[in-house]
Amino acid sequence: MRIAVDVLGGDNAPDEILKGVADALLSGEFAAKELLLVGPQAVIQRQLEATGVSELPPILHTEQVIEGHEKPVEGLRSNPEASIVLCVGAVREGKADGLIAFGNTGATVAAATMGLGMLPGIRRPGIAIVLHGRQGPFTVLDAGANPSPKPNHLFQYGLMGASFAQDVLGIAEPRVALLNIGGEAGKGSPVLKEAYAMLEQAPLSFTGNIEGNHLFFGEADVIVADGFAGNMVLKVVEGFAEYLTGRAMEVSQDAGQGLRDTIRQLFGAADYAEVGGASLLGVNGTVLIGHGRSQASAVLPALRAVRKDVEKGVNRHITERIAASQSDNASTSA
Amino acid sequence: MRIAVDVLGGDNAPDEILKGVADALLSGEFAAKELLLVGPQAVIQRQLEATGVSELPPILHTEQVIEGHEKPVEGLRSNPEASIVLCVGAVREGKADGLIAFGNTGATVAAATMGLGMLPGIRRPGIAIVLHGRQGPFTVLDAGANPSPKPNHLFQYGLMGASFAQDVLGIAEPRVALLNIGGEAGKGSPVLKEAYAMLEQAPLSFTGNIEGNHLFFGEADVIVADGFAGNMVLKVVEGFAEYLTGRAMEVSQDAGQGLRDTIRQLFGAADYAEVGGASLLGVNGTVLIGHGRSQASAVLPALRAVRKDVEKGVNRHITERIAASQSDNASTSA
Repeated sequence: MRIAVDVLGGDNAPDEILKGVADALLSGEFAAKELLLVGPQAVIQRQLEATGVSELPPILHTEQVIEGHEKPVEGLRSNPEASIVLCVGAVREGKADGLIAFGNTGATVAAATMGLGMLPGIRRPGIAIVLHGRQGPFTVLDAGANPSPKPNHLFQYGLMGASFAQDVLGIAEPRVALLNIGGEAGKGSPVLKEAYAMLEQAPLSFTGNIEGNHLFFGEADVIVADGFAGNMVLKVVEGFAEYLTGRAMEVSQDAGQGLRDTIRQLFGAADYAEVGGASLLGVNGTVLIGHGRSQASAVLPALRAVRKDVEKGVNRHITERIAASQSDNASTSA
Repeated sequence: MRIAVDVLGGDNAPDEILKGVADALLSGEFAAKELLLVGPQAVIQRQLEATGVSELPPILHTEQVIEGHEKPVEGLRSNPEASIVLCVGAVREGKADGLIAFGNTGATVAAATMGLGMLPGIRRPGIAIVLHGRQGPFTVLDAGANPSPKPNHLFQYGLMGASFAQDVLGIAEPRVALLNIGGEAGKGSPVLKEAYAMLEQAPLSFTGNIEGNHLFFGEADVIVADGFAGNMVLKVVEGFAEYLTGRAMEVSQDAGQGLRDTIRQLFGAADYAEVGGASLLGVNGTVLIGHGRSQASAVLPALRAVRKDVEKGVNRHITERIAASQSDNASTSA
C-alpha cells in the first residue's frame, strides 16, 4: 500500500506536513516506500534529513500549489502541475492507493472528481466527517462537497454513509438519519422531503429526520446532510468549541483543560489542528481531506485513516450497496 | 402598556407559565393591569391565588391550545379559540401592546402573520434570537420563520436586524454579516449571492459573509441567515452546549458548573429553560416567542423583552428604515 501526501497544501505547509511525515516514519508505523511525497524535492529532502529520517520516501516533484483562497476551478486551470493534481494523478495511475491533502478543500474535491471519476452509479461525491458523541462515533455526510444536492444525492449519501460506518466505525447496522429543522416527517424543503421518502424505501435502517440539537446523543450513526447544512454544523461546532475553550481558559486553566479534553473526545482530537481529516466518498479512489489549519499531529491520523479505508474496502462496499439499491429499484419498477 | 401572556402554550404550561407570571407580579416589576392572561380562567385564578398574588390580571378565557406537535395551519384551523389566536387578537384590537408565547413556534408565526399582518413594506417575518459572544450580544435573524427565503427577504432581515440591534442591544452602528459556508464574496447559493449584492448596496454597515466558526468572536452584531441555516445554528449550539455540560458534569461538578456558567453567558441564561425568547420581527405587533421547554424563570425575561421592544419603538424604526431603503431604491432607479 502506498499513500500520496500533498506536502504543499494547507496553512502550515510544507513545514508541519513534513514534520508529521517524519513522525510517521520515525514511529515505524509507515515505511518510506509506503508514502509518495508530492512537493518540492529539495525542501522535502532537506527537512526530512534534518529530522533524522534515514530512508526517504519517493518524491514527485512540484512547486505549484493551489492556495486556500483560490477558486477551485480557476486554481486547477492555472496550476496544471499543482501538488493536489499530481496526488490525484498518482492515484489514478495506480502509483498510490490513496492520498491525503490539507489544502484548498474545493480544489481537492474538484481535482479528485475530475481526475478519478465517480464510483459506478454514484452521482456526486460527499465529505464524511466523523464526530464523537455520547454513544461513540458518528458520521455527518455531506460536510460541504455538494451544497445544493438533489434528493438522489442525499439518498446515495445514506447508502455511502452506511458502508463507511460499517467499515470504518465498526457499526454492524448503522442507523441513518436526515438532518432537518424539524423532527417530524414532512418537514423541510421539497428536496429534503423527497430525500426522506427515498431513504424510507432504502435497504437501510432509516430513523427519520434529526435536528441539530439531537446530533450528539447517539440517536443515529450516519447523519445525511446537504453540504450547506453539514458544513454549517461542522463550522458552528468548531467555532463554539473554540469559543468555550477560550472562555473556560480565562476562568481557570483547569476548567479550560477539562473542556479541551471533552472536545478532544468529540473530534477524536483536541481541535482541528490534530484531526486527521474527512473522507471524500463517492470518487473512484481514496481521498482524505484534512483541515487547512492542520499541524504535524494531523498527518499520522490521516495516513491511518486512508490505510483503514483501503484495507476495509470502503469503496468496494459502497459500489456493491449502490448496485444492490439500483437492482432493487429496477425490480420494483418492473 | 399591557402584555398578553399565552398561558397554555409550551411543554410546561400552564403550571410553569403561571408560576412565572406570579413571580413577575410579586416582584413588583409588572402590575396586574399590565398583563392579560389568556387561558383557562378557573385554573389561572386558583394557581395565582395559591402563590399569594393579591390582585389578579385580567383574563381572556379559553381552554383551547395548539400543541407543539400539531401542524401550524391545521392547528389554527381546528382551534379557532386557541390561546395563541386570542393573544394575537388582543394585540390586533389594541387590548395588548405585545404578547409572549411559549408554544408551537410555527403556529405562533402563522397566527401573528395572519392576524397582525406585516409592517409596511416588509415581505416576510423573521425570528431574531440574541446570543452573547466574546464581544457581547449579537443577533441571528432569521432563526426559523422562513426556511426558504428570497434574496429580498434576507436583505430586509439585514435592515430589521440593524434596527433591533440598535434599539434592543444598544449598538450604535451594527455590523451586519450574511451567514454562509465561505467567507469570500461569491460563495453559496444563488439566493445568498443575490442577497449579498443587495446588502452590499444597503444603507448598512455590511461586513460580508460570515462562517459558522466565526459567529462567537464579535466580528458582526447582526447575522443574517436563511431560516433553515439560522435554525440549524441555534439547534446545534443548544445541543452541543447540553452535551458538553453533561460530559463536564460527569467529570466534575465544578467543571460542569463552570461550563454551565459560560453557557449561561452565551444565552444570557443557563439554558433554554431560562431564556426569555426570540423576537418575531416584521409583523405589525410585538411578539416574543419563547422556547417550548421554558420554565417559570423564562417568563419575566420574556415580559421585559416585550416591554423593551415596545418602549424602544423597534417596529417604528424598522418601518422607517425599510421606507428609507425603498426611497433609496426608487431614487437610484429613477
